[in-house]
Amino acid sequence: MNTMTDIEVIINNKRFTLCGYESPEYLQRVASYINGKYLEFKTKESYSRLDDNLKNVLLEINIADDYFKALKKLKEKEEESDRKSTELFNMKHEVISSQTKLDSITQELLELKKEYNEAQKRIVKLETELEESKKHQQF
Amino acid sequence: MNTMTDIEVIINNKRFTLCGYESPEYLQRVASYINGKYLEFKTKESYSRLDDNLKNVLLEINIADDYFKALKKLKEKEEESDRKSTELFNMKHEVISSQTKLDSITQELLELKKEYNEAQKRIVKLETELEESKKHQQF
Repeated sequence: MNTMTDIEVIINNKRFTLCGYESPEYLQRVASYINGKYLEFKTKESYSRLDDNLKNVLLEINIADDYFKALKKLKEKEEESDRKSTELFNMKHEVISSQTKLDSITQELLELKKEYNEAQKRIVKLETELEESKKHQQF
Repeated sequence: MNTMTDIEVIINNKRFTLCGYESPEYLQRVASYINGKYLEFKTKESYSRLDDNLKNVLLEINIADDYFKALKKLKEKEEESDRKSTELFNMKHEVISSQTKLDSITQELLELKKEYNEAQKRIVKLETELEESKKHQQF
């Protein structure tokens, strides 16, 4: 855990000294984001006519809206990631099943090759014996 | 796109009428979240002694902090989802390659079975011929 530090930020042209565990870089990024919101609001003419309470609430709602929208995206991404996990799980099973089939058929092929070679030898032997037998017949 | 509607919300015990495109349910959820923040802050004795400007800024930073933390999680989830996509892509290739091998070896096995059957028939034929030939020899 970081230690608490005093960090100076400028928000809406006012200087504040904040004390927290976050890094100065992080707090400056947050301050810069909030300043962006103030700037955005100030470009709207209607905003300047509002009372301070409403101005504050609108800014809070605007930031909270960014937060809620990020949460929605996060939920969608989590669901997408979960779907991919299921797909991966099924595919891993498919790979294993495919590999098992491949191993079994490879083994079957090897055994059949052996038997086929034996059969070939038997054919050569029988052909030789038959040739010999026919020679004997001739005498 | 929804039409703009006037929605009444109560934030920090003050009533506001907001005009926006969001649904009333959504804005009430946002208002309830912001009220939670006010409540949380009010339980801290040190907060009540601060001036209004600093109170507002602290609240804005707190909400923005939730937003930034959600963004961080979102980024991590996006990276996780991307990694899974790569894994799925590679696994799909593995499945296809495995299936191609399986098809090829199945074909090889079928052809060898045919040749083996032919060899078996040839053996039976040769054995019969040899037997016949040996019978002739005996006469």
